[in-house]
Amino acid sequence: MTTSSSGYSPGLEGVIAGVTAICSVENGLSYRGYSVEDLAQQASFDEVAFLLLYGDLPSSVELQRFQARVAMARRLPHPVRDLLPQLPNWTPPLDALRTIVSALAHFDQDVADNSHEANLRKAERLLAQIPVAIADYHRISQGLQPIAARQDLSQAANFLYMLRGAEASESEVRALDVSLILYAEHEFNASTFTARVIVSTMSDLHSAITGAIGALKGPLHGGANEKVMDILREAGEPDQAERWAMERLQLKERIMGFGHRVYKHGDERAKLLKQLTRKVAEERGPEYLHWEETAERIEAVILREKGLQPNLDWPAGRLYNALGLAVPLYTPIFAMARIAGWSAHVIEQLDHNRLIRPRAQYIGPGPRTVVPLRDRP
Amino acid sequence: MTTSSSGYSPGLEGVIAGVTAICSVENGLSYRGYSVEDLAQQASFDEVAFLLLYGDLPSSVELQRFQARVAMARRLPHPVRDLLPQLPNWTPPLDALRTIVSALAHFDQDVADNSHEANLRKAERLLAQIPVAIADYHRISQGLQPIAARQDLSQAANFLYMLRGAEASESEVRALDVSLILYAEHEFNASTFTARVIVSTMSDLHSAITGAIGALKGPLHGGANEKVMDILREAGEPDQAERWAMERLQLKERIMGFGHRVYKHGDERAKLLKQLTRKVAEERGPEYLHWEETAERIEAVILREKGLQPNLDWPAGRLYNALGLAVPLYTPIFAMARIAGWSAHVIEQLDHNRLIRPRAQYIGPGPRTVVPLRDRP
Repeated sequence: MTTSSSGYSPGLEGVIAGVTAICSVENGLSYRGYSVEDLAQQASFDEVAFLLLYGDLPSSVELQRFQARVAMARRLPHPVRDLLPQLPNWTPPLDALRTIVSALAHFDQDVADNSHEANLRKAERLLAQIPVAIADYHRISQGLQPIAARQDLSQAANFLYMLRGAEASESEVRALDVSLILYAEHEFNASTFTARVIVSTMSDLHSAITGAIGALKGPLHGGANEKVMDILREAGEPDQAERWAMERLQLKERIMGFGHRVYKHGDERAKLLKQLTRKVAEERGPEYLHWEETAERIEAVILREKGLQPNLDWPAGRLYNALGLAVPLYTPIFAMARIAGWSAHVIEQLDHNRLIRPRAQYIGPGPRTVVPLRDRP
Repeated sequence: MTTSSSGYSPGLEGVIAGVTAICSVENGLSYRGYSVEDLAQQASFDEVAFLLLYGDLPSSVELQRFQARVAMARRLPHPVRDLLPQLPNWTPPLDALRTIVSALAHFDQDVADNSHEANLRKAERLLAQIPVAIADYHRISQGLQPIAARQDLSQAANFLYMLRGAEASESEVRALDVSLILYAEHEFNASTFTARVIVSTMSDLHSAITGAIGALKGPLHGGANEKVMDILREAGEPDQAERWAMERLQLKERIMGFGHRVYKHGDERAKLLKQLTRKVAEERGPEYLHWEETAERIEAVILREKGLQPNLDWPAGRLYNALGLAVPLYTPIFAMARIAGWSAHVIEQLDHNRLIRPRAQYIGPGPRTVVPLRDRP
C-alpha cells in the first residue's frame, strides 16, 4: 500500500490527528517547551514526570510532595499481587504488565471518575505501581521473593533496588534515569495515539494505558529495544560486525534500532544516551565495552549503506544489558517511563474531548445477495 | 476544537485512515458485499462471524465445522477461571472482560504467532471464550455457580443458556442473534481503529482486542447501550416522555442512543432491530411493551426538534432489558458480537501492515530553558 490517488496517507504518515501542548518533535524533541537535551542534562525523571503531568517543572517543595505521594503508592493491592504467581512463568513481562494494569483498575477508587483531578491521582498511582509490578513479576517468575519498595528513592533508583535487593551505583541510577527521561514522551506515537483513541470514547485512564501497553509491545514500537542484544550477539565480535551487517542488508532484512518515521536526519535521543551507555559499560568491564565496539561498526555500515541513523532503542538496549537487566525487561522499562507521557495525553484528550473515529476506503467485493444456507453448495 | 485552518480534522472525522475489504458504510452498511439487512434476514450470527473472518459465507459443512471448533473452545483455562471470584464484585463486567481477555493471552499457545492462520485460530478461540467469560463472571458476581457451556447451541443460544441455566425461546434467541449480526462489524469505529493501531506495531491479536474492549467501554461508543434503560426509567410513563425529552433538550443535554457520526440520515440497524425488540417485549408482557411506547415518544421529539434518528444502541438496550438481562451486560454483549469484526480487522491489518503513527499540531509553550532544581523558587 502506497499513497493512493485519493490523497489517503497509509499509516496516517504526516497526517495531523489532533493538537497537543505536551510535546513537539519539530526542531528537536521538546516536552512542554523544554528540549530533551536540556532536561536530560539538568533534570531528573521524577521532575520530568511532574512536568508532563502538571505542565511545569516542580519547585523543590512540589517535587518532594510529588515524590512522597508516588513513593506511598508503590504497592499492589493483595489480589493483584496474588495474581502474579498464577501467570505461567513464560509470560513475557510486558504481557503480564498489560493484564496487571487492567486488573489494577478494579481496585482503584477513582476508576469511574474522569475529572482532571481524578485522572492525575490515577496517573500518579500507575506511575508508582508499574515499576513495582515489573520488578515483582520479574522476581516471582525467576523463583525469587519480591523485594518491598523503598520510599526514599527516586523512580529509577527504587526500580534497580527492587530488582537487585541492593542499591545501584550513582552512575547506574543516572544512566537509567536519563533513559527514562528520553523514553517518557513522544507526541502521537502508536501507543500514545492508542491511548487517546481509547479515551476519546469517554472510557477511562486504565483502559487507555492497558491498550497503550499492548501497542508498545510490537517490534515496530517499544518491542524494538529487546531486539538490540539479539542483533549484537548475532553480529558477534567487532571485527565480524561489518560483514554481518552487509549480509543482512543484502538479504533486505530490517535491522531494528535504526531509522525513525519522524526523524529523517537522526534521533538526538540516541546520541544523548550513547555516552552514558559507554560509561556504564566501561565500569562493568571489557565484556560489556565490547558490545559498544560491535555497535559502532554496525552503525557505520547502516549509515554508509542506507543513510539511516540509530534511534533511542539502539543505545537503550545496550544500556539495560550493561545494567545487568534481563532482556524481557527492556520494553517494560520503556512503559515505566512512557506512563508519564501516556497519562498526560489521556488527560489532555479528556479535557478537550472529541471522539476519534476516522473512515476507511472500501476495496472489498461489490454488492451481493445472501443465498440461504440450505441452498448453498 | 473545530476544523482548523491547517486543514486538520478534529477526531479524524471524514479522514481516510486505511483501506478495508471487510465493511462499507456507503449506501447502507454491508459486510464483505452483503447488506446487513439481507444478512439479518437470511443468515445467523455464526454465519456472519465466519463471513467476517474468512471472507465468504460458509457452506453447510463449513458452518458445522466452524461451530464445532467454536463450541469446543467454550471454556476458560483454570487459572483464568480462578481469577473471576478474585475480582471485587462491583467490577463492571466489561472491565472484567478486558482483564480476562488480556489474561487469556498468557494461556494461548499461538500468542506469539502473527501468521494469518494462527490469528484465525486465536480469533475463533476468543469468539468462544468471550461469552463464557461474560456469563461466568456475571453469575459469580451474583453469588451463583457458573453453568457449563453447551456444545450443541449457537453463540446466541448458548449465551442465554449459560446466563439462565435454561434454554431460551426461539424468538428470544433469534432477536439476540440479529442484534449480534448488527453489532458484529462497523468499519473504522473507535474500538476497531484502536485494534488496528495496536497491531500495526506488530504486537498481537490479544493486545489489540484488549485495547478494543477498553475503547468500547466509553459512552460515546459501546457504553451507550447501557444508558438506554436509564433514559427510559427517567422519562417514565409514555405520557410524561415528551415533556421529559423537551426538558433535556432545553438543558442541552446529550441523549444517548441518537445520531451517529457516519449516518446523518438514520441508522438502518436501529430500524431492523426495533421490530424484533417489540416482538420480544410483547411476549414478555405489558411492563416491557410500555418501554416501547415511552421510546416511541422520545424518538418523535428528538426527530422533530433535533432532526436526529435513533442508532442501534437505542433498540438494543430495550431488547436486552426485555430479555431479562442485567444492564451491565449490554456492552459486554456488544463485545461478544464485535469480536468477529475486530479480529477480521486485526488480521487484515497484519496481512498488509504499515505502522499507524500520525502527527500532532503543537500548541504548547515556546522554547524555554531548564532552571536547575536548586535555583527554582
